[in-house]
Amino acid sequence: MSQLSSQSIGIFDSGIGGLTVAHAVTKLLPNENIIYFGDLAHLPYGDKSTAAIQAYTIKICDILLQQHCKLILIACHSASSAAYDLVKEYVASKAQVINVIDPAVNHIREHFTKKRIGLIGTRQTVNSNIYKKKIDDLQLEIELRSLATPLLVPMIEEGFADNNILTQTLSNYLSHSELDNIDALLLGCTHYPIIKQQIMDFYEKKITLIDSADISALAVKGLLEHHHILNMQTNTPQHKFYVSDYTEAFLASAKWFFPDVIHFEHYPLWE
Amino acid sequence: MSQLSSQSIGIFDSGIGGLTVAHAVTKLLPNENIIYFGDLAHLPYGDKSTAAIQAYTIKICDILLQQHCKLILIACHSASSAAYDLVKEYVASKAQVINVIDPAVNHIREHFTKKRIGLIGTRQTVNSNIYKKKIDDLQLEIELRSLATPLLVPMIEEGFADNNILTQTLSNYLSHSELDNIDALLLGCTHYPIIKQQIMDFYEKKITLIDSADISALAVKGLLEHHHILNMQTNTPQHKFYVSDYTEAFLASAKWFFPDVIHFEHYPLWE
Repeated sequence: MSQLSSQSIGIFDSGIGGLTVAHAVTKLLPNENIIYFGDLAHLPYGDKSTAAIQAYTIKICDILLQQHCKLILIACHSASSAAYDLVKEYVASKAQVINVIDPAVNHIREHFTKKRIGLIGTRQTVNSNIYKKKIDDLQLEIELRSLATPLLVPMIEEGFADNNILTQTLSNYLSHSELDNIDALLLGCTHYPIIKQQIMDFYEKKITLIDSADISALAVKGLLEHHHILNMQTNTPQHKFYVSDYTEAFLASAKWFFPDVIHFEHYPLWE
Repeated sequence: MSQLSSQSIGIFDSGIGGLTVAHAVTKLLPNENIIYFGDLAHLPYGDKSTAAIQAYTIKICDILLQQHCKLILIACHSASSAAYDLVKEYVASKAQVINVIDPAVNHIREHFTKKRIGLIGTRQTVNSNIYKKKIDDLQLEIELRSLATPLLVPMIEEGFADNNILTQTLSNYLSHSELDNIDALLLGCTHYPIIKQQIMDFYEKKITLIDSADISALAVKGLLEHHHILNMQTNTPQHKFYVSDYTEAFLASAKWFFPDVIHFEHYPLWE
């Protein structure tokens, strides 16, 4: 086991969505230390341009590399779509890099040959066509049907998860003809696992939900194992949270996922 | 008429909301040149902390002062609430400063003594209690009832203005007991004039809508007249648009309000 094993896993997103991925990682890998960066100053990324997301992402990777992270997990589909290739080049050999899109595509390759998959996500993710390109490249006769569902993030961020407006909005989106007769639905945004139950309720268990948070956590484990840098120490891990803006809403969500977290460091991306 | 008269009016907001105010200003004052700054990199302000909004606002005011604006109009309730006092101090004698809250309070003072007014706005605006404090200070037995309606901005930004989800969401918000038996509804967010018709439809003309975009435009006119710096030149005005991030959604909205605009300058707040 190399010295690198005890270094942290860096995870970032614009807001609370990435917390679903961070939570999945800590459940699967309870020995690992997490450094989470929430770019709340630029939340939500789904609305921003590709160039802007790339600039924010590089700033955040600088911070995670200063903290000697052994692996950087881009826990946001918009950033994975806009900036993964850039981050891979930029980080180079300094850390492993993983996004939330490729693990989902690998999962689909293994389980959904000749099936019809629905994708819901932000405009940025859906319009990038990144899933379609990657799935078409598999040449496994998998048909991808995509629908941008931009109101789900604000509804989740506002804590409308139990509201009948959410139910109506979900019903409106999921009844769209683009998503007719799908075998599985891919949750193409890291916020969506928070409303997984409501989505399951709509489909009455007739289709499979593909949750990229759990799948990405498995991919992180596989990559750490492959490079022999899993943390085998059984000390209680020390998680750190950085935010580029400090809001009560985020703090409440973070404490919901990580009840023991007591400190958030304010770290503006630009001074 | 001083040389200052021909200088521009600077107007800013995080997104498209301020365009309703800019549009009202150009309708009322067709000779004036406008410089509009849309801080799309930090959109929406309603989610951000007070300190963050203050920092962005100062950066934007620096840009507007470099352009020799004679007046700065803070066309956003969240920024008016979080940063108006700071901007007044910061800009000092270099330009006139006006926000979108005080003109609405003055309008209420003149027309709504002993009435019950409903206020809808972002969490930032409603939680700041700024309207309540100012209206209570009038001592005119005006009762203010406030409700945060945070989903309206994303719905408007996403162009859901004609969608039945918007109608249902509006109905859900406006039926809230906090807004029972009001005589007038104050649109406490510069996005809301875009869905004025749908709000009118809900109330079936039984109450008065207070639109701070139109009221702020009147206040701008009054302040320019008071200081003898109205632009009397009848040349076609030259409007300029700066954005801190460049997105198709904003461009489409800006062209809807200002069909002749052909150029947007990308001006990141931090380099």
